[in-house]
Amino acid sequence: MIKSGVVFQKNVCVRSFEIDPEYRMSTKAIMNYLQETSLEYGKKLGLLVDARFGVTPGMCKLDLVWVFRDMRIEVDRYPCWGDVVQIITWACTTATGLRLDWTINDTNTSETLVRASCFAVMMNKKTRKSCKLPEEVKDELRAFVTTDVDLDPVIEAQRYSTPRIETMDHIRTGLTPGWNDLDVNYHVNNAKYLDWVLESTPDWIIYSHELWKINFEYRKECLKDDVIQSLSRVVTDETDGLSVRMVEMEHVLRLASGIQVLRARTGWRPTPRLSTNDPTGPGPGPGPIPT
Amino acid sequence: MIKSGVVFQKNVCVRSFEIDPEYRMSTKAIMNYLQETSLEYGKKLGLLVDARFGVTPGMCKLDLVWVFRDMRIEVDRYPCWGDVVQIITWACTTATGLRLDWTINDTNTSETLVRASCFAVMMNKKTRKSCKLPEEVKDELRAFVTTDVDLDPVIEAQRYSTPRIETMDHIRTGLTPGWNDLDVNYHVNNAKYLDWVLESTPDWIIYSHELWKINFEYRKECLKDDVIQSLSRVVTDETDGLSVRMVEMEHVLRLASGIQVLRARTGWRPTPRLSTNDPTGPGPGPGPIPT
Repeated sequence: MIKSGVVFQKNVCVRSFEIDPEYRMSTKAIMNYLQETSLEYGKKLGLLVDARFGVTPGMCKLDLVWVFRDMRIEVDRYPCWGDVVQIITWACTTATGLRLDWTINDTNTSETLVRASCFAVMMNKKTRKSCKLPEEVKDELRAFVTTDVDLDPVIEAQRYSTPRIETMDHIRTGLTPGWNDLDVNYHVNNAKYLDWVLESTPDWIIYSHELWKINFEYRKECLKDDVIQSLSRVVTDETDGLSVRMVEMEHVLRLASGIQVLRARTGWRPTPRLSTNDPTGPGPGPGPIPT
Repeated sequence: MIKSGVVFQKNVCVRSFEIDPEYRMSTKAIMNYLQETSLEYGKKLGLLVDARFGVTPGMCKLDLVWVFRDMRIEVDRYPCWGDVVQIITWACTTATGLRLDWTINDTNTSETLVRASCFAVMMNKKTRKSCKLPEEVKDELRAFVTTDVDLDPVIEAQRYSTPRIETMDHIRTGLTPGWNDLDVNYHVNNAKYLDWVLESTPDWIIYSHELWKINFEYRKECLKDDVIQSLSRVVTDETDGLSVRMVEMEHVLRLASGIQVLRARTGWRPTPRLSTNDPTGPGPGPGPIPT
């Protein structure tokens, strides 16, 4: 806890089960730690009901739990297996919910590796409907509100046009959550959606590029028995003057009924090859990269 | 590092994304930490090539990587969110591979919560075939071998009869790995198999019981494009004199071609209800429990 208790800081070591085949921390693991540090922050402030998931006494009484409405992440550089990174988080209430911000820094150089912002709202546990912050809860959260740091979000919210489903040409169907994808609210954890987004991202992008930008708009919770369709399209695929091929994609996750559970944009840049893996060797190496 | 460097010990705090809906550490998270502590142990001994996944210089030269052949786990009590547990691990070489053992203890009471043993062999990265320990590698691993602790495995290997596929009456098909399920060897991580085993375990067992025993026999690696069938059957379902209903299950994971990737046994006992979740409330609560 630093800065009068309104900013929380924690060091984390990247573990072997949190890395991708290139030994870099996975974006999903980063999302998990964003959630983790915010919950720990609330715990440290003594704000939460013991052993509940970010729930204040007032929320408990009203049967309310937190759900993420959106999540924005930008990665400058991925930390690697064994690296120790510093995660800093702070929060502020708005009329309708709670904004959370994070930076992840290299503990040796203080270089900022990752920046993230999200907006959380409340959901009634019984009706499964989201709602505005009740005054009672807003009062409780006052201690949680940042007062002496810049109130601009680390990443500004961006408005995108409504995705055009009919133009989405990369489709995966039949995706289902496993028991280990559910959180204590008995719905799919916010980081799992990334798995499904990647399932309709073309292999050539995943093998040659790395995810550097995420913009998730969560539209509906997913439950254990839901069957998900993942749809994607390349929005831009441009090579700049330095021969760097940047790709932007648009994604929708939806139920068979057509109800959308996530709208997303992702940004991809060529992967810096640092690994000891030989991507050209036989066995399950990368697929071909279309020109 | 304790006991002349042949036993490694590490404290771990259970994080919010490593728990099940009942706030207890998931069995999958436990499996992840078993792998993690063994790799860290090898690193600490200075035995491993920098930034490679448990690979010694000799293994590197011969293009060999480690793969798990089996895994046995018994859980006395699951730690909960925020608990700090102590993981202890040690290893010994055999004629054909490496045996790893672990205990996970409550740091406050020293009570043993989890015991586990596994057997690891080598696989050639190019041919994807497993092989015995080359003498060159055995020499390197000498420092890794336990000399002053009990050499009996924490959990003895058990022989089970060949599973009878035709009697398996709980079946889930179309299960596929995601990008985040792959490890640095570009195949599915050992802990992911548990997700698939759970997919053909009846809901009533998952809602009313907890996994206390795992016996996994890994038979074939899984790659990104594999499509898995999960088959299960209840072997025993017995209520003892104290009205405790114990269930044992048999599982097979296989490809559509019939090739088996995992054979498993799991043991289940009634879940102690400690959580703040109300399992009888509306919303996505537990399913019915057949009598």
